Amino acid sequence: MPALSMETNDPLIVGVDLGGTNIEAAVVRGGTVLASKKKKTKAKRGVDTVLDRIAETVTKAIDRLDGDASAIEALCIGAPGAVDPQTGVVLSAPNLDWHEVPLGEALHERLDMPVMVSNDVNIGVVGEHVYGAGKGALHMVGIFVGSGIGGGVVIDGTLHSGWRGAAGEIGHMVVKPHGRVCGCGREGCVEAYASKTAMEKIIREEQARGRATEVFDIMDAKGKEKLTSSVIEAALDAEDPLMEEAMQQAQYYLGLLTANLVNVLDPEVVVYGGGVVERLGAPFLEPIARTARAHYLQRRGAEDIRIVPAALGDDAGPVGAAVLAQRRMQAAIGS
Amino acid sequence: MPALSMETNDPLIVGVDLGGTNIEAAVVRGGTVLASKKKKTKAKRGVDTVLDRIAETVTKAIDRLDGDASAIEALCIGAPGAVDPQTGVVLSAPNLDWHEVPLGEALHERLDMPVMVSNDVNIGVVGEHVYGAGKGALHMVGIFVGSGIGGGVVIDGTLHSGWRGAAGEIGHMVVKPHGRVCGCGREGCVEAYASKTAMEKIIREEQARGRATEVFDIMDAKGKEKLTSSVIEAALDAEDPLMEEAMQQAQYYLGLLTANLVNVLDPEVVVYGGGVVERLGAPFLEPIARTARAHYLQRRGAEDIRIVPAALGDDAGPVGAAVLAQRRMQAAIGS
Repeated sequence: MPALSMETNDPLIVGVDLGGTNIEAAVVRGGTVLASKKKKTKAKRGVDTVLDRIAETVTKAIDRLDGDASAIEALCIGAPGAVDPQTGVVLSAPNLDWHEVPLGEALHERLDMPVMVSNDVNIGVVGEHVYGAGKGALHMVGIFVGSGIGGGVVIDGTLHSGWRGAAGEIGHMVVKPHGRVCGCGREGCVEAYASKTAMEKIIREEQARGRATEVFDIMDAKGKEKLTSSVIEAALDAEDPLMEEAMQQAQYYLGLLTANLVNVLDPEVVVYGGGVVERLGAPFLEPIARTARAHYLQRRGAEDIRIVPAALGDDAGPVGAAVLAQRRMQAAIGS
Repeated sequence: MPALSMETNDPLIVGVDLGGTNIEAAVVRGGTVLASKKKKTKAKRGVDTVLDRIAETVTKAIDRLDGDASAIEALCIGAPGAVDPQTGVVLSAPNLDWHEVPLGEALHERLDMPVMVSNDVNIGVVGEHVYGAGKGALHMVGIFVGSGIGGGVVIDGTLHSGWRGAAGEIGHMVVKPHGRVCGCGREGCVEAYASKTAMEKIIREEQARGRATEVFDIMDAKGKEKLTSSVIEAALDAEDPLMEEAMQQAQYYLGLLTANLVNVLDPEVVVYGGGVVERLGAPFLEPIARTARAHYLQRRGAEDIRIVPAALGDDAGPVGAAVLAQRRMQAAIGS
């Protein structure tokens, strides 16, 4: 890993977090967001529309920059799916209904700057590691709770990508043998219990069995079509019993996931991010940390392992993308 | 990690695997065992006796060397427990009933050569990685099935030791919520299902419930006090139903463990070692690999991940210990 010197002479880089719902672009220097812009993704309108919208979001963010935009050296974008960082192709992104989309090439044509493509969870983990809640930790685990459960593993200061570039699929850790069917088609994955999608499904099933819940009334009142973090918060505030049960179950399995990752990897810090964590904050993590500590070995300073909320919020992705771009540029110079 | 050049001018090193039952010492050059000696540990006779027996085993191995023993540059020993590699102290080794034993210092006094102390599973994993079934893999997971379940994680060619030096505790991955009580006191660890100790306990419980088994007759006939790998093999040959059930359950949970490690770490190869694997060979691994493949994501070349038996047998520990000593020496020269 090249040494990072995030000084005032750090390069000016555009970091982009491409999500199923939103596109967030930021002009970043040394971990600081200097200007940013957010737009809806509107994936249903097709690939070309989304590519145009990304370019527009980037251009708007650059327009907002109080400084010399020509100094921008590169763009790095994290896409919600499997990517080939070498070719810049998004192999598959189910939330966007994308298959084999040459994202890097398309943005290079539209924006005329060097473009790097990564994964959305990866950039979030790197952002939190270098500038957020994992700052200074040699080894870190990042867990992002949203529509799915994503994550990343930082080893010796670097995101561990694995042999096939497929490491960090922590959402599919089996936490219950022959358990609930996951979106991936397998049984017992933690994502089948602890994602927003899973919690909504569990609550619908219980309601179909005749149990009462206010969750769907709250959803309607808020004009939401699915279980969002704000719906979860309102339902918990209303002490809705099905929401409370689903949440407790999610926290229990996230606790097992955390314990298993700690036993295998011995990180200094476990950072929890994503919409649910941002909305509910530290109280969401307390039961997770309690279950985790009850399940990992309590030897040699285990009590000092920190389980903490992410610190950068929506900025984690763009900031992490900028870090990856800067590292790639430094490696290119060094080689 | 310093580059390894295991050529004919590799140093001559003594590698020692200190187990609860046996001490194995070997004089190693570049991954090749040139001379070796094995003795019983006899831990019940106390710390000093074991220390003397280690020194005797090493001296005998050196006596068998057809060459210049004065060329031996260092000794590295793997102990069955938690060690402090900096001080050479064995912090705790339950199988030996050792607490805070200054193993490095004691062997240096007895043998007058530089001594390095590591963990027994670590040295086995490193041996298999550099010269055995994991040779050439950048990322590898090692799983050792014996009285317990041990393991190690190789990332970017180096054993990942973690923040507290506690990484690789894969035997305590929770594979069943609220499951069987493990030797560590927690519930549902894979070690509580798949270690020899656990399988024996499970069979005893079923027998106490009135089910028939020949396992304990086989144990007696072989003069064994516990469920050894040879007893397991004989009981499986006799198609003992309780042995078969316990083994199938063990293989199922080892399959989940393997799947979870693959999803998190994306290794090129998973190497299974330890007494049970050595005795039963590839047929032991087939159901494990089948369950694993059914539970990890089948994306991007997942079918190419190898799940294979260890290749070095008893030599893995001493050979891996020699690798660690050589790396330490090279790092010292390089610094």
